[in-house]
Amino acid sequence: MLRSHNCGELREDHVGQEVTLSGWVQKIRDKGGLMWVDLRDRYGITQLTFEEGRTKAEAIETARKLGREFVIQVKGKVVERYAKNDKIPTGSIEIDVEELTILNAAKTPPFVIEDETDGGEDLRMKYRYLDLRRGTVRRKLELRSQLAIAVRNYLSNQQFVEVETPVLIKSTPEGARDFVVPSRINPGEFYALPQSPQTFKQLLMVSGFDRYFQIVKCFRDEDLRADRQPEFTQIDCEMSFVDRDDVLDTFEGMTRHLFSSIKEVELGQFPRMSYADAMSKYGSDKPDVRFGMEFVELNDVAQNKGFNVFDQAELVVGICAKGCAEYTRKQLDALTDFVKRPQIGAKGLVYVKCNADGTFKSSVDKFYTQENLAEWAQKAGAEAGDLMLVLSGNTNSTRKQMNELRLHMGSELGLRNPNEFKPLWVVDFPLLEWDEETQRFHAMHHPFTSPLKEDIKKLDTDPGSVRANAYDLVINGVEIGGGSIRIHDKATQQLMFKHLGFSDEEAKAQFGFLMDAFEFGAPPHGGIAFGFDRLCAMFGGSETIRDYIAFPKNTSGRDVMIDSPSEVADEQLVELGLRLR
Amino acid sequence: MLRSHNCGELREDHVGQEVTLSGWVQKIRDKGGLMWVDLRDRYGITQLTFEEGRTKAEAIETARKLGREFVIQVKGKVVERYAKNDKIPTGSIEIDVEELTILNAAKTPPFVIEDETDGGEDLRMKYRYLDLRRGTVRRKLELRSQLAIAVRNYLSNQQFVEVETPVLIKSTPEGARDFVVPSRINPGEFYALPQSPQTFKQLLMVSGFDRYFQIVKCFRDEDLRADRQPEFTQIDCEMSFVDRDDVLDTFEGMTRHLFSSIKEVELGQFPRMSYADAMSKYGSDKPDVRFGMEFVELNDVAQNKGFNVFDQAELVVGICAKGCAEYTRKQLDALTDFVKRPQIGAKGLVYVKCNADGTFKSSVDKFYTQENLAEWAQKAGAEAGDLMLVLSGNTNSTRKQMNELRLHMGSELGLRNPNEFKPLWVVDFPLLEWDEETQRFHAMHHPFTSPLKEDIKKLDTDPGSVRANAYDLVINGVEIGGGSIRIHDKATQQLMFKHLGFSDEEAKAQFGFLMDAFEFGAPPHGGIAFGFDRLCAMFGGSETIRDYIAFPKNTSGRDVMIDSPSEVADEQLVELGLRLR
Repeated sequence: MLRSHNCGELREDHVGQEVTLSGWVQKIRDKGGLMWVDLRDRYGITQLTFEEGRTKAEAIETARKLGREFVIQVKGKVVERYAKNDKIPTGSIEIDVEELTILNAAKTPPFVIEDETDGGEDLRMKYRYLDLRRGTVRRKLELRSQLAIAVRNYLSNQQFVEVETPVLIKSTPEGARDFVVPSRINPGEFYALPQSPQTFKQLLMVSGFDRYFQIVKCFRDEDLRADRQPEFTQIDCEMSFVDRDDVLDTFEGMTRHLFSSIKEVELGQFPRMSYADAMSKYGSDKPDVRFGMEFVELNDVAQNKGFNVFDQAELVVGICAKGCAEYTRKQLDALTDFVKRPQIGAKGLVYVKCNADGTFKSSVDKFYTQENLAEWAQKAGAEAGDLMLVLSGNTNSTRKQMNELRLHMGSELGLRNPNEFKPLWVVDFPLLEWDEETQRFHAMHHPFTSPLKEDIKKLDTDPGSVRANAYDLVINGVEIGGGSIRIHDKATQQLMFKHLGFSDEEAKAQFGFLMDAFEFGAPPHGGIAFGFDRLCAMFGGSETIRDYIAFPKNTSGRDVMIDSPSEVADEQLVELGLRLR
Repeated sequence: MLRSHNCGELREDHVGQEVTLSGWVQKIRDKGGLMWVDLRDRYGITQLTFEEGRTKAEAIETARKLGREFVIQVKGKVVERYAKNDKIPTGSIEIDVEELTILNAAKTPPFVIEDETDGGEDLRMKYRYLDLRRGTVRRKLELRSQLAIAVRNYLSNQQFVEVETPVLIKSTPEGARDFVVPSRINPGEFYALPQSPQTFKQLLMVSGFDRYFQIVKCFRDEDLRADRQPEFTQIDCEMSFVDRDDVLDTFEGMTRHLFSSIKEVELGQFPRMSYADAMSKYGSDKPDVRFGMEFVELNDVAQNKGFNVFDQAELVVGICAKGCAEYTRKQLDALTDFVKRPQIGAKGLVYVKCNADGTFKSSVDKFYTQENLAEWAQKAGAEAGDLMLVLSGNTNSTRKQMNELRLHMGSELGLRNPNEFKPLWVVDFPLLEWDEETQRFHAMHHPFTSPLKEDIKKLDTDPGSVRANAYDLVINGVEIGGGSIRIHDKATQQLMFKHLGFSDEEAKAQFGFLMDAFEFGAPPHGGIAFGFDRLCAMFGGSETIRDYIAFPKNTSGRDVMIDSPSEVADEQLVELGLRLR
């Protein structure tokens, strides 16, 4: 190797040894007769010294040519440092340089290669290979690698087999839009890139693999939002002969293991909450339960007192913000502005201050007596010093608005500690959701999700109320994983496709192979998929998954570094039997 | 879970326990009053017993409805078996069934689900999920999973970081044909699927990742041959601050570890051989060195003796087949027919028998004296009882022919033991190879491969003779991996592109980002990629990689199980800005 040691491993024990190091020039200090160079690699930084009179003139001459980010090799002796630096592990030694070779020169980088950089997002993405050189960024990807191997070892030890499913599969109209790949050998035909290996993992259960997993790239051709990538990675899992609790227990175990072994955080038992409860208590199917501030329905105490807005509302719902009775006019106005933002869409916000003296001050004092407000406070568990915030309107949208307000208050009050992790299973999701645009039901999870046995009979009479045997893992208000017990018999699968508006022919053309498979001895099975990018972001304490992807695409789906997508040669289109419109 | 134990774990220790098992019906034997069912899952087979009078009538009635591959659940007591079966680990117990539930019925499978099946290739591919149910097939994929995790743990322990590189990248004209993916958001533009993550892993070296690996899907839109898949998997690796021997040592270590830990085979030191030597000794850049039978060049002893065929040949080359002097006329004719096959293409075959009495008998006795033939024999190390086989013609094609003949003889003589593993590094490949069709040089490895330093000066004068710092790992005549030390400076990379016929503009448009990166401090680096499908096949002792791929495509690139590729809806093409020709 072009080094005997890396830049992070030399200590006082090595003093006196002749070593060879290679790396990048991080910093140069030239004090005339004395010169220091910080040499950096992935493993650390080691200080090199050059002294006129003692160091060979040739080496000093070369050193004077160095610039930041030059790649160099040095040979020299490890010596004890006069002024020790206890901030870095190599801080008690330095290298008394004997030979210096420039392995590669470097132009001045377009931004500073430090943990804190002056480079804007666009510039850093164009020069992503330099952005990745920064320790903060590189460590995120090292964490990702570490997480992946921990997942693999855990699942392998639990007898899960990792099976690679194909990337070139078949396009289906269900779900998000597929990326397609024209076939040259079969002109006019296309493969699709998988949105998930769903049907393949189910076939593996039919094959008797019993426990399958895969850390796998998936693809969705959707309009991109800030934190959505056209290609993303899942931890995809499936098990046979299980019911819901077996799946939850298994992956709760995995999640606990990951937090414990990688973050030294002990998560304890994960609570389980129905979708219905999550919606009524938090207005969200992914509640952040690091803090309480649960919803309190106030219809019975707030309606029929002459306040028209509440009287006409389907739902009157409040939260109690502890210790916020002292909020100023300005602060309350800011909260009202917050809920009235177009993306939240509330019409207004009612507040009730629970004063220290036991009285109440509200924005609806005109309609409610002190006794009325005391009733509200009692329902909400609000005490002297607390602030109640109340919204009203139709149930679904009011809950959504209150969810936003609750999260906002949680942040404002410092209740969403990024170093605290509160997991939660949300279960019993609706099977179907009505799509106004297409005027038909869509599968909320996917068409292979099993309805709860006791609800199947309602499929014909009240399909919207049928619950699925589906579950999500939520941590700190972020959906980390989701799955379901699957349908494993042809009749139920056909029924499901019927309710999703598939004709028999369509169902057969798209998923005939799966329904055929169900006739040859399919075991009961279920599984889960984790968003691996998001899991990494959560472990790393970051909000954005892009930081955890080595070469992400921008919101136009472009890789600005390699300038992709790009045009292809005409001959290539001819070969594929295609022309541009 | 729908079971308390799996079908492979019950032993005499469990006798007396109440258990619940789930699985597939493998076999039913009904002897009237007594009935046995073999219950199978991934972990093994357990025998169930039903006895009239003792077993509940209901369970017996249900049992009579069972057929092969039904999925059932049984509850019962573990009892010691009267007639023990020592061929299976559960052979000393059976389950005295108390309750039997059919979890799913099964139609009769289209072929027998046993290690040996009656299903033809096409049928098994259409019902791949049933083919995978056979133990022999499933175990191949279990081996693959085991190998992958062993590779990951080994490399992680050596400080390699697994980084996921993008699947949606940029199309480049170099190398094989890309699969392309039309971009909807950027109409008229296309992504390409990677043939390998080559440029990305090099950028990671520029980023200072120091040691990278990835087990990754790669794609090539080539006409398919029997053992080539449009999507395949590589173990892709790259290291910084290394020279060739560092890379070879590292991956020799990995390979030895895999063989030792998974196959309990100790490989010892891997010999290293130049490409030139491999070609002259074996006529192949991937010689099978499980046996000798090296080429012996006979020009100096066989030419100018009046045999026109040899006199006009560029090369006269022989091999010595030990102990084959007794070959019959028929056997020799068969060898001649073998080398004259169109795919081999020799004009004829000369033989020399070294008789037990010290005389020689050859097919060219007319031209050569006994003394002449004794000289040949001496050169070839042929002794009494041996057979020499000689071919002649132009050097390249004669070597190829002799390579085929050597392998054929090796097989015929039982010298290619599938349980013996002989690795070999082949090094110093040519940098460029001349392509008659396009009348230009192509990179033999790829355009990022570094020429040997001492040969760079010949790039302008004699490019065909320039050697690359490239290497292949060959085991038993199969190329398992290949790599090179890369170019890491812009000037050399530009020179290389020039010799490959790129204009400056083309080079910049396609690989500008890489050459830019080389200007910001690129370390010397090199790497290797292993064909993971092939490595699995070698470990499993199989000739074909398809067995080691869960859902392979056929030679028309079709997945006949899901019927892909397929047509897509017109609206989808409109969205992509495409129309069919």
